[in-house]
Amino acid sequence: MSAYDALMQFQRETEALGQIAGRLGWDQETMMPDAATPQRAEEHGAMANILHARRIDPRVGEWLDQAEAADEVAAANLRHIRRSFERTAKVPAALAAELAKTTSLAHRVWAQARADEDVASFLPMLQKVVDLRRQEAAAIAGNTDPYDALLDDYEPGATGASLGAMFAALRPRLVALRAAILDRPAPAALSGTFDEAAQLAISCKLALAFGYSLDNGRIDKAVHPFCSGSGLDVRITTRTNLTDPFNCFYSTIHEVGHATYEQGIDAAHLLTPLGAGVSMGVHESQSRIYENQLGRSRAFTGWLYGQMRDQFGDFGIADEEAFYATVNRVSDGFIRTEADEVQYNLHVLLRFDLERALISGDLAVGDLEAAWNDRFAADFGFAVDKPSNGVLQDVHWSEGLFGYFPTYTLGNVYAGCLHEALRQAVPGLDDDLARGDTSRATGWLRENLQQFGGLRTPVATVTHAIGAQPSEAPLLDYLEEKFGQIYGL
Amino acid sequence: MSAYDALMQFQRETEALGQIAGRLGWDQETMMPDAATPQRAEEHGAMANILHARRIDPRVGEWLDQAEAADEVAAANLRHIRRSFERTAKVPAALAAELAKTTSLAHRVWAQARADEDVASFLPMLQKVVDLRRQEAAAIAGNTDPYDALLDDYEPGATGASLGAMFAALRPRLVALRAAILDRPAPAALSGTFDEAAQLAISCKLALAFGYSLDNGRIDKAVHPFCSGSGLDVRITTRTNLTDPFNCFYSTIHEVGHATYEQGIDAAHLLTPLGAGVSMGVHESQSRIYENQLGRSRAFTGWLYGQMRDQFGDFGIADEEAFYATVNRVSDGFIRTEADEVQYNLHVLLRFDLERALISGDLAVGDLEAAWNDRFAADFGFAVDKPSNGVLQDVHWSEGLFGYFPTYTLGNVYAGCLHEALRQAVPGLDDDLARGDTSRATGWLRENLQQFGGLRTPVATVTHAIGAQPSEAPLLDYLEEKFGQIYGL
Repeated sequence: MSAYDALMQFQRETEALGQIAGRLGWDQETMMPDAATPQRAEEHGAMANILHARRIDPRVGEWLDQAEAADEVAAANLRHIRRSFERTAKVPAALAAELAKTTSLAHRVWAQARADEDVASFLPMLQKVVDLRRQEAAAIAGNTDPYDALLDDYEPGATGASLGAMFAALRPRLVALRAAILDRPAPAALSGTFDEAAQLAISCKLALAFGYSLDNGRIDKAVHPFCSGSGLDVRITTRTNLTDPFNCFYSTIHEVGHATYEQGIDAAHLLTPLGAGVSMGVHESQSRIYENQLGRSRAFTGWLYGQMRDQFGDFGIADEEAFYATVNRVSDGFIRTEADEVQYNLHVLLRFDLERALISGDLAVGDLEAAWNDRFAADFGFAVDKPSNGVLQDVHWSEGLFGYFPTYTLGNVYAGCLHEALRQAVPGLDDDLARGDTSRATGWLRENLQQFGGLRTPVATVTHAIGAQPSEAPLLDYLEEKFGQIYGL
Repeated sequence: MSAYDALMQFQRETEALGQIAGRLGWDQETMMPDAATPQRAEEHGAMANILHARRIDPRVGEWLDQAEAADEVAAANLRHIRRSFERTAKVPAALAAELAKTTSLAHRVWAQARADEDVASFLPMLQKVVDLRRQEAAAIAGNTDPYDALLDDYEPGATGASLGAMFAALRPRLVALRAAILDRPAPAALSGTFDEAAQLAISCKLALAFGYSLDNGRIDKAVHPFCSGSGLDVRITTRTNLTDPFNCFYSTIHEVGHATYEQGIDAAHLLTPLGAGVSMGVHESQSRIYENQLGRSRAFTGWLYGQMRDQFGDFGIADEEAFYATVNRVSDGFIRTEADEVQYNLHVLLRFDLERALISGDLAVGDLEAAWNDRFAADFGFAVDKPSNGVLQDVHWSEGLFGYFPTYTLGNVYAGCLHEALRQAVPGLDDDLARGDTSRATGWLRENLQQFGGLRTPVATVTHAIGAQPSEAPLLDYLEEKFGQIYGL
């Protein structure tokens, strides 16, 4: 057997074990009995040890030294395996263990601090997490920007400098758009309650409308919606809220975006490094274009309005046009995860700048809350009222996730680019969407992006799909045009 | 770290991985999307390879050589680990792989042969399975009875000779009892249909009544009811049949017997070799005493009658006494899994004698069908009409499970012994059961048997609970008395 074949056989088993580990997480959030938690922690730990040992197995290094790539696919597989092997091997085992232990502890301290509205009680743990992640970054990146080493884990090839330039171009136009919108009268909001079973029926219809296959997936309820798995078994969760059915519908469409990306990858890549979405940013581009550019479009919301009328009768919104405005209503708020298309990226930009400064050392952990509150007031025009609405609102930093936040906005930027290209490639798409038919849109995405999985780098994946270098301009143009029309700007 | 502690740390992780592998099986039967099968096969294979490699890891041998047992628990842990290590190490890897491949193939051939009612098409595969299992037995047992080596995998310490003597004592009295019963008029059978949701509501009530904890478990529907998992996460499945609610109720109680055994093991044994039921036979004793001696008793069926009246109104059975006879109705039939308390063991005894003869070489595979049909006619008094009602009805042999069948009847024998001891220890139990309260019965089983898990050998586990050597006499006495009364013999 050639070194390449031996490596791929080993890798295939590792990928299968990775799928099992992921499904264990799915089970924990959907099916696991409450009191099983302590045992489950040991199961997760055992699985993590197995996967870690395989990732740094010396045979992988030997195979990588000897393996030759016969074609583009083989070259891509070797690139992925080498990247993971080298990255994992550079981090000392003691540091990896200390990080795992500290972030597990920090997560609990953060949850308590948030409940107590007590930032100070979290800062010593956060300091430790930041220090350990800086050590890890130094071990991986040597003398280059340590933030880039962390970012690279979620978005291979991206740098803090390049994202920083892109985000700096986004910020002023988003701040201005947000302010202009909030100066105008707000559209009607939903009122009343919406039967849960009917919400779930529409949710399932939406999932199918966007091309999700239940032959290779399933939909369950969970506290936080998520998508889990690759290949032939890609599951999503959603949630319901009695007074806010949009929460259910757009959570479902968002997760279906992630899931159909996984389901749309060429079956030839099953259980190989190419058989999963290529990066967090590209993944988020799929969930976002489904959720926002398609799912919150005038045409598609017209169809959704009819579905809601069928299920709920007259729910107080007069017609499709009013419903479109209601779906896209912009409201003040503190919380990133509740933010609309316009404000969402401002929340991310804030976190990106602060976490870059924390990792570079330009911002001290002790000054983080003040920096957060100053920046929030500058961009949103009002003051943070309490830490759970400010610096303590997100779980990420307690878990050591530095470099993760910017992939959300990068996903939105990519979605903007893809939407522009899609509209040029598929004329008359709105006629389809108005009938609830997304097949030409999802087909274009599958054909031009999803099927390739990890074949190319993340940027090259998007560049191949749109035929140009991605930039922030299409997203900004789209937002200004859409919300300018809705709000009469 | 001492050799014992190092071994136990390694073993604990192996046990955790074993739990994950088991839950993967649960997921496949309850939750997995249909088209995920090919990927799941690779996931199972990867997990099996990991577990196999850990079971024969040379470090386990070294630790076993050096480890010292500080107490009874440590001695039992070492005994279990040594037994598994030595057994696994004795089977050549090539033979293990060939067995896995052949049984996987044989399973499919058997399913097709059963559908086609074509015994001949299955025999070449069965021959190969028998040959491989005989090779395996020879590798494990050397010159002793090869059947014992296979049996030992499911019921450590049991031998074909000792079970053969016990079963020989069962057979004539069971044949005579069956014949006498079927000479008498049969009690009324259920008729009509029974709402599925109401069946499941009673099923859940039964599970709770028998002490099953939903904090550490869950109930789902599956084609074949089963119990999965140990420790803090023990799940069961049940099924419904529109015209036969007893199928649902007694499947549930049966699986709850298995599940509460696992849930009742001392928490100190979690994720150790002592933290699971000690053998197939002892496990079956728990499911059977719950299902039969308790669940089909006059007192408990009186309570169940009230539950069914509450859910279904008048369903055509006049009173508790008539209902008791209906629940325990004995009918002719070909199929082991549908058999009642009286006939079930005759089905098992037939298989035990035939599979012993196959493994010893006294019976040729080509003569199996004739031997089956002769024996069936002798014990049941009528002829097998087609292979799917005869030699092709069970999956076991196609999967290489030789030595498994007798543990079913051993479980019934143990249940008879435990029931006799329970009744002596807990006077007035029927007053509790008539109120649907099993707590003194299940408490006695937990106290005297379940909590110990794998601390003692299977026979010693039962002996400890009943204070005597187990024998077939209590089961026979119980059956003759119970059915003698119902049928007026």
